[in-house]
Amino acid sequence: MEIKILKNVLIKNSAIGKDNRDLFWKHKIFTLNMISSPGAGKTTLLENSLAYFTKNYRTAVIEGDLYTAKDSERLQSHNIPIVQINTEGGCHLDARMISGALQNLKLEELDLIFIENVGNLVCPSSFDLGENLRVLILSVTEGADKPEKYANIFAGAEVILINKVDLAPLCKIDINTIISEIKKINPKAPIFPVTATDYNSLNDWNNWLDKAINNYRNATR
Amino acid sequence: MEIKILKNVLIKNSAIGKDNRDLFWKHKIFTLNMISSPGAGKTTLLENSLAYFTKNYRTAVIEGDLYTAKDSERLQSHNIPIVQINTEGGCHLDARMISGALQNLKLEELDLIFIENVGNLVCPSSFDLGENLRVLILSVTEGADKPEKYANIFAGAEVILINKVDLAPLCKIDINTIISEIKKINPKAPIFPVTATDYNSLNDWNNWLDKAINNYRNATR
Repeated sequence: MEIKILKNVLIKNSAIGKDNRDLFWKHKIFTLNMISSPGAGKTTLLENSLAYFTKNYRTAVIEGDLYTAKDSERLQSHNIPIVQINTEGGCHLDARMISGALQNLKLEELDLIFIENVGNLVCPSSFDLGENLRVLILSVTEGADKPEKYANIFAGAEVILINKVDLAPLCKIDINTIISEIKKINPKAPIFPVTATDYNSLNDWNNWLDKAINNYRNATR
Repeated sequence: MEIKILKNVLIKNSAIGKDNRDLFWKHKIFTLNMISSPGAGKTTLLENSLAYFTKNYRTAVIEGDLYTAKDSERLQSHNIPIVQINTEGGCHLDARMISGALQNLKLEELDLIFIENVGNLVCPSSFDLGENLRVLILSVTEGADKPEKYANIFAGAEVILINKVDLAPLCKIDINTIISEIKKINPKAPIFPVTATDYNSLNDWNNWLDKAINNYRNATR
């Protein structure tokens, strides 16, 4: 019975996710779903990515968090629309929450939406939010065994950032080992090693994402 | 309807958790439920804690993981009973899984069981496994904002270890800030700053846990 309920939840979620995706397409808005463990660096990455992307794209952020608005507060200085979703203990964002958040944004005035999911390497994997790109961020401090241990979420990612590479020597972790462990689970996703606090380390990622956004906007569906 | 189902799941879980706790008490087995984000250092802590505790206590480990037996393999050298639970994508251990795992252990030959939960800072908080002590491990690399952001799991912890304190200067994080953030959410739980890879940094934690085990074993219920 519980399994049946879960299946129904996921089927309903996928339907709303599809509606969200259609709505994004209608407005040619490119949307990212950013997933990671707690503290892997989603918000820091966002802070520095916004510095780059707000120059060329009308950008908004949807912030997922259990209880607080701490991450939204960190992004205030960018002067862009930010919608906070508090899940009140819930372990992931779902498509309906995003659909609700979109009511608070002027979609006709947007090109790009970053969605920061709840910090969790398990539950967000099953919930399509309608995003165009599912971004997974792994901190090197978490260890090279994580891709195999959290295989679902690594397999479903469309691009993977390895963050905090500056800490790798101190953690005695080899970035190439992490990369090869990721490729065992997900051979297709591009991988970008970065240090989110260092703006310059984000160049390759920013350029790649810029192209992905342009490809989407210039595509016919 | 979904909320009702969740409530039923939790009520059923609590009943089985109580049965587990009664069984532990019958055999005077002290049991820890170790919870953290992915890669915060549960297994490394376990490796070094086992070196200390297996000297004085007949010890076993129950290892929770989504798919792999990687953590169990890391603990093989201790030559103690290890039971692997794979949740097949499930985001937490529950009391029934522990009850099943106990079928594979000779309880009359044990004093101490470490349970390593799935790496997740959200979902394990709601599921009582019947443990005597709920241990939360936070890595300094995750940041000082985590206690407030993941308040449920911090509030429910009975002891909290701050791990990887050797990385604090590089992460520009002040341990005292983390401690005061934890105390806002949970003023009661003892807090131990450690570096799980450094055996000597575990002295205070080992001594404290040793006393907690002895208090339990000498108590009348």
